[in-house]
Amino acid sequence: MNGTLYGLGVGPGDPELITLKALRLLRAAPVIAYPAPEHGDSLARAIVAGHLPDGQTEIAIRMPMVVERFPAQEIYDRAAVEIGAHLEAGRDVAVLCEGDPFFYGSFMYLFGRMAEHFPVQVVPGVSSLTACAAASGAALASRNDVLTVIPAPLSPERLRELLLNTDAAAIMKLGRHFAKVRDVLTELGLAKQARYVERATMPNQRLLPLDEVDPDSVPYFSMVLVHKRGEAWS
Amino acid sequence: MNGTLYGLGVGPGDPELITLKALRLLRAAPVIAYPAPEHGDSLARAIVAGHLPDGQTEIAIRMPMVVERFPAQEIYDRAAVEIGAHLEAGRDVAVLCEGDPFFYGSFMYLFGRMAEHFPVQVVPGVSSLTACAAASGAALASRNDVLTVIPAPLSPERLRELLLNTDAAAIMKLGRHFAKVRDVLTELGLAKQARYVERATMPNQRLLPLDEVDPDSVPYFSMVLVHKRGEAWS
Repeated sequence: MNGTLYGLGVGPGDPELITLKALRLLRAAPVIAYPAPEHGDSLARAIVAGHLPDGQTEIAIRMPMVVERFPAQEIYDRAAVEIGAHLEAGRDVAVLCEGDPFFYGSFMYLFGRMAEHFPVQVVPGVSSLTACAAASGAALASRNDVLTVIPAPLSPERLRELLLNTDAAAIMKLGRHFAKVRDVLTELGLAKQARYVERATMPNQRLLPLDEVDPDSVPYFSMVLVHKRGEAWS
Repeated sequence: MNGTLYGLGVGPGDPELITLKALRLLRAAPVIAYPAPEHGDSLARAIVAGHLPDGQTEIAIRMPMVVERFPAQEIYDRAAVEIGAHLEAGRDVAVLCEGDPFFYGSFMYLFGRMAEHFPVQVVPGVSSLTACAAASGAALASRNDVLTVIPAPLSPERLRELLLNTDAAAIMKLGRHFAKVRDVLTELGLAKQARYVERATMPNQRLLPLDEVDPDSVPYFSMVLVHKRGEAWS
């Protein structure tokens, strides 16, 4: 019998923000796999490092960090073959996913290749979206608010259109797009109520007003949250 | 010294989808509080029932289930007074929140009343958004997709406008609004790829194609997920 492929959300960074379910399945799996940079450590693996039992087989899915030239199809093709061999041998494989597997996560590229051939179970995790809201001390949305999740690489025109047409927004994947996002929010009169959160729930988490953020120092793991009413609960 | 008010996300329903952090804080708190219907059991409390130690003081915040006549300000005013008395006496209070405290959750109404007066810590949880995606077996969004969270009570015109202007959508709080949502999706040619998820991660979870859903039986805890490309990973 084939093994099961598990996509485990391990949460946004704080090792305590893993669920009991992900932890149980992670510990029971004979094989774990995780995304990693071309050189260096995997964040997803680092989040759960304190929980890993001895003797697991580990597969690092190493991805060149070339901005916006993803997904690298051939890397997922190869990972699917390597993981598939374990599943065919009857071994479960747990794929560690930062945040949640299905919220802008790379797990979906393995899922797309493997779900027709093997049993797959996805365990949802705490996403960066709600982790950033908790860190910022402000609710994302309430009642009949529309909440729009917006990737920062979009054009200023598209950002403007989306922000005009929503009650609340989470602007993700900031990195080198921060200045553009800040300028659009300023133009729309939303800069004052916007909250910048960097590396939510990690030891080096930072919260800043928009005008104190150095655009040259903004990491990929950052987000701007904004609610048109200022506070969702009001 | 005042106690701390904790807003603990306890996840979408499966008791195993609580985080280690929420579980630790929940067990340590001398007082817990939770939303509950006017008569009957609290879902948030039921999720964690197996984890509760003996001897905790419990505060049920009972809310009349009158559709769309919320929030009931005076009920939160009274709860804030009752919880505040414990905090002033130096006792921590853990408020149990279904899903995530800041994702359309009622905790924000307590937070809004108390955060200026007491230390507050919010622990993010697995939201219904990612729980429904995991249950549906389809990713919410990828790469530079825009993802819009849409409350079903909005007008058909507003639903149409929002769906036309996004790559992917999660339509929440369906209940008696299901038929309207289905009709708008059908009109836009999106009904086939939409996925209906009811009570995600609970024992009575159901997945159905839109045309098999009985509009008269749709609970509040349900969601329609749709991606314009059919699959986010494609």
